[in-house]
Amino acid sequence: MKYLTGGMLALLAGISGTAMGDEGMWTLDHLPVQQIQQRYGFTPSAQWIDLVQHASVRLAEGCSGSFVSANGLVMTNHHCANGCLSQLSGKGRNYMDDGFVADRREDEAKCPTMEINQLDAITDVTARVNAATAGTHGAARMAAIRAIDSRIEQECIAGHASQWRCDVVSLYHGGRYALYRYRRYQDVRLVFAPEQGIAFFGGDPDNFNFPRYDMDVTFFRAYVDGKPASTPKFLKFSPQGPKAGQLTFVVGNPGSTQRETPWTALQAMRDNQLIPAWGRLSEMRGVLWDYSRRGSQQATAADDTLFGLDNSLKVYGGWLETLNDPAFAHRKQVQDQDLREWIAADAGRRQRFGDPWATLQQAEDRSHELATPYSVIEAGSGFASSLFKQARTLVRAAAERQKPDAERLPAYRDANLPALQQAVASTAAYDRDYDETTLAWSLEKMRQRLGSDAPFVHEVLGRQSPEQKAQALLTGSRLSDPAYREKLWQGGAAAIAASTDPMIVLARQIDPQARALRKQYEDEVVAPVTQASEAIAQARFARDGANSYPDATFSPRLSFGKVVGWNEAGKPVAPFTDIAGLYRRATGAAPYQLPDSWLKARAALDPATPMDFVTDNDIIGGNSGSPVIDQNGHAVGLIFDGNIHSLGGNFQYDGRQNRAVAVDTALLEQAIDKVYHLPRLARELDNGKL
Amino acid sequence: MKYLTGGMLALLAGISGTAMGDEGMWTLDHLPVQQIQQRYGFTPSAQWIDLVQHASVRLAEGCSGSFVSANGLVMTNHHCANGCLSQLSGKGRNYMDDGFVADRREDEAKCPTMEINQLDAITDVTARVNAATAGTHGAARMAAIRAIDSRIEQECIAGHASQWRCDVVSLYHGGRYALYRYRRYQDVRLVFAPEQGIAFFGGDPDNFNFPRYDMDVTFFRAYVDGKPASTPKFLKFSPQGPKAGQLTFVVGNPGSTQRETPWTALQAMRDNQLIPAWGRLSEMRGVLWDYSRRGSQQATAADDTLFGLDNSLKVYGGWLETLNDPAFAHRKQVQDQDLREWIAADAGRRQRFGDPWATLQQAEDRSHELATPYSVIEAGSGFASSLFKQARTLVRAAAERQKPDAERLPAYRDANLPALQQAVASTAAYDRDYDETTLAWSLEKMRQRLGSDAPFVHEVLGRQSPEQKAQALLTGSRLSDPAYREKLWQGGAAAIAASTDPMIVLARQIDPQARALRKQYEDEVVAPVTQASEAIAQARFARDGANSYPDATFSPRLSFGKVVGWNEAGKPVAPFTDIAGLYRRATGAAPYQLPDSWLKARAALDPATPMDFVTDNDIIGGNSGSPVIDQNGHAVGLIFDGNIHSLGGNFQYDGRQNRAVAVDTALLEQAIDKVYHLPRLARELDNGKL
Repeated sequence: MKYLTGGMLALLAGISGTAMGDEGMWTLDHLPVQQIQQRYGFTPSAQWIDLVQHASVRLAEGCSGSFVSANGLVMTNHHCANGCLSQLSGKGRNYMDDGFVADRREDEAKCPTMEINQLDAITDVTARVNAATAGTHGAARMAAIRAIDSRIEQECIAGHASQWRCDVVSLYHGGRYALYRYRRYQDVRLVFAPEQGIAFFGGDPDNFNFPRYDMDVTFFRAYVDGKPASTPKFLKFSPQGPKAGQLTFVVGNPGSTQRETPWTALQAMRDNQLIPAWGRLSEMRGVLWDYSRRGSQQATAADDTLFGLDNSLKVYGGWLETLNDPAFAHRKQVQDQDLREWIAADAGRRQRFGDPWATLQQAEDRSHELATPYSVIEAGSGFASSLFKQARTLVRAAAERQKPDAERLPAYRDANLPALQQAVASTAAYDRDYDETTLAWSLEKMRQRLGSDAPFVHEVLGRQSPEQKAQALLTGSRLSDPAYREKLWQGGAAAIAASTDPMIVLARQIDPQARALRKQYEDEVVAPVTQASEAIAQARFARDGANSYPDATFSPRLSFGKVVGWNEAGKPVAPFTDIAGLYRRATGAAPYQLPDSWLKARAALDPATPMDFVTDNDIIGGNSGSPVIDQNGHAVGLIFDGNIHSLGGNFQYDGRQNRAVAVDTALLEQAIDKVYHLPRLARELDNGKL
Repeated sequence: MKYLTGGMLALLAGISGTAMGDEGMWTLDHLPVQQIQQRYGFTPSAQWIDLVQHASVRLAEGCSGSFVSANGLVMTNHHCANGCLSQLSGKGRNYMDDGFVADRREDEAKCPTMEINQLDAITDVTARVNAATAGTHGAARMAAIRAIDSRIEQECIAGHASQWRCDVVSLYHGGRYALYRYRRYQDVRLVFAPEQGIAFFGGDPDNFNFPRYDMDVTFFRAYVDGKPASTPKFLKFSPQGPKAGQLTFVVGNPGSTQRETPWTALQAMRDNQLIPAWGRLSEMRGVLWDYSRRGSQQATAADDTLFGLDNSLKVYGGWLETLNDPAFAHRKQVQDQDLREWIAADAGRRQRFGDPWATLQQAEDRSHELATPYSVIEAGSGFASSLFKQARTLVRAAAERQKPDAERLPAYRDANLPALQQAVASTAAYDRDYDETTLAWSLEKMRQRLGSDAPFVHEVLGRQSPEQKAQALLTGSRLSDPAYREKLWQGGAAAIAASTDPMIVLARQIDPQARALRKQYEDEVVAPVTQASEAIAQARFARDGANSYPDATFSPRLSFGKVVGWNEAGKPVAPFTDIAGLYRRATGAAPYQLPDSWLKARAALDPATPMDFVTDNDIIGGNSGSPVIDQNGHAVGLIFDGNIHSLGGNFQYDGRQNRAVAVDTALLEQAIDKVYHLPRLARELDNGKL
């Protein structure tokens, strides 16, 4: 009986006979077609690839999505819409809590800062980049890369910055360079968002966990010239969702991974960045937790950032778990040692690759010294204020826009100016009390981290306490007024130089030191680490050959896999949850409190309808909102998370436990009909057009 | 000129020719008399040692102090009095902010929970303990140690628990056992405390830093039978303070160090305890930071805990700095490896010591699994509420008091009951809103850390949110009433079993699981780690011989050293600060805001009066409040801190940079006269009696 039970449990968990996980985040121009064919008996055709490429989109702020109708209808996650929902809320409306429905097309509401990018073409530019950087080192190399990147991107944009976005992407840590050209959509409007209570049912406690019961979806529409965009290449929406064991593809934009990173660099990252950030973000979470308890206005103001903090803290916790695992550390060290010995064993190799680990160690020692001032002063963790962020952008943009494109800081290149200007002009609600709280707190941390005797601290605070300084800055500043910001943007360097706005004065005052730190950090840490990592990646490539995928770079990737559960502490976790489970889990107390709409609809819903499911697709943060696509190119699900084991996926893919978590389209089909009664949206999904 | 300048700078910094640091926290019955004689030409006499032993005291809550008059006058730190000052405040009085002065002896105010211990005698009991534990392992060994400790302590107390406190102390990780008998003073009254603004001038930003400008002092008086205690052995108070380069002794109670701990255990401690605590306490700090901003009542309620959190976080930051230092890790690993090889090289040694590192690794793997539930459920981090703490004490005390002393949990042995009962009956102010805030937050963290699906979480929260649960518990509980708690204490097991107080019900309900976890943790982690550590310590002893000091154990120790600055990033730090510097540093904004008393007294003070100073005495947390003693047995200073480099002293003493920070008695002399105008106190310090 034992074997049978075991077999039944495995079946229940959807565990197939394939032992190997489906590792890899592949670029769309180099798909492992043979591997997919061998494992699943399916060969993606050129037409299929072209469809999924154009139907999948990137949300510039850090998510993924897909077109699901010919008229620009975009499906993504609710948590990718947090920014827009918060910005549109206020004046008695709370779209996060209450959801949003555009009954008519005219009611679709423009998101103040949202931008969508659709991958149009990939061009290999490795030869051009290598030619332009040959023989350069350190700072000169950084400048050379920046210059050639800028030139290539400028040519690609060809003067149409509002239409095209062009990025030179470094793949395989500089083993390959590719130009990604995206169609840019800046007029993005909100069509439908459910209540946060169902989108993020289970809240932080359930985040990165499974079984899960979330309808983490939002629909937007891309507009061009005030009309719905024409998007003939879209994913047909499957009303059924997938089956256990079924082959699934995920196309999206995994943000970054560090699977190729040597142990020295991982250890330095852990000690110089991760652990300090773990403390700092934990403290900020505490501040916002208490702040949120003061009232609903405060809770609304903090909601978006609190969500981000919770999410980051779980991610960092998962990373620390992997980085502190002695077995992982040992494996990485052995890998590094093997490669070092392989290089050392041959004079030609020694000549070609040198000792990148020594370079790395030196750079990491420098990183140890620079990490704190860099974080506080240049990365801005000492100035957690939305008005400071605006001031920094305005001050830098005024200076950078006077330079040739190639010499600018990357964020201020022509390609990025439309998004920046959009942020400057944003009409998102501003909460003074909230901003003062986070600013006062961060100024206090600045003093603590740099020390009361640091000249920079004296310069910023003078004889004021962090509280006093925060108050003085915000009382005197007019930067909460979008029109005033717009005026400063238009006025350029002269307007900035003449401004007496205290926040502009502060940003102007610290900018030389911030820039100097940035340069130091780039020259003495980033450049040598990059170059050493490239040398190591190239040595590995020389030894092991190709057929691998590059680390993630927030550019479009495809992963393949299947719907499958896993074993947790010896017990199987089934790959699907259903609506019945949702109602069982609801306690009536947040975050397990269902919205009224769901309480009312209960009788009308089929309790056996699948809700969320897991697959072994290899994904990572940035994939949020990615479609789960079947062999027919239909959307059968919507990625919104990974399980807790997926967090270590930043460093290694473990197919035994690493799982992607998705909303089932069958749930969406039923909820749109029975819970939200949205015939307009249901019809569009059904017909593939408005 | 270069050499001369260098020499002058070294002189300025008070750097003497002695390269070696003055390492060691020595027990009073094994002082390195020869070493002191060789280095400083002074031999402590038996009479001198007897004096400093009896004149130095331990504050049971975790500090040190000294008698400075024959009538029980105790000098310690202001930050060691935080608890008492908060407890006595309320009803419009704020002794933390405003300070406290007893104009007449009758005004000296009893501290609700303070206990002072004066070391009376040390007896070696190694042979008795070893005989009682011979041949035992694991849980049996823990029980055997507990039993023999209890028996020895009972004999020592001899039925006079309110007079004597007796502790069996394991020194050299079980290499030696000593019985420490203390005179117990439970009637401790507040005589004088300055304002927090000068005691903790510079606040958290200056904490663990130097130059420093704090008058971190409080005077108490020990009473016996309602009268000032007779304390003929006391330190004469020096009105001059010390000179640069002068030999200094510190007698106090360093809490704990881990200098003998093998790397495997340090690494496990870092990953299983330190990093999680770093995040958790950071978050709690954020909660209390925001809570304190709500108003002065909230600030007062949170003040004490916030101070403790700030302090712990700096300590943990310093620990992480050392533990993450690759050079330190390497050195420890080499030490461990050397010792392993020394054992492996000889059959007799292999037989005697076994492979304690393997035992250690196994135990630490178990620690990784148990650390979180242990912290949440048994250590109580999931229930951050003063009423829960009371409930836990009452529930456990009722059960434990029914057992023979030897079978009880250590905290509930007869020796500890007076302190426990005092805490139960404490009339300290209770702040319901504050308690609810921390409880709600910690319940949320409990759910997060154990997971929403954990049976324990279901059992505690049921269908309530952490907020709801916290509110329900505190609304229904009567434990804020000291009389009610006293009644439950007196009622014992029957009263506890019959109680329907929701907090008692909760503590009762989770106690079996908490106890089971404790047992598991003790049997599977503590016992094997202790035994392995003992084996390693004994092997090291066998190889290297004696002449070393044991790791700190919050029992009285003496360290010797000298007044000396250090070099910071190549620049000398002078060993003294003065009153002139204090006024320069004051900005008018907290924590650099001087109290009115100091603003008014400015003209009357000699600006050249030394304020704080540093020595290279080897101290650690727990030494707060220790006297700095000269060769004549006079008090010349008052330890209140270490510099930032002293934090790594938990793991290694580095005499180049590790410094103790003390208040100069010359400052106290002047402030008592010119700032506070306290002729009664000045006279007592001058005359050595009331």
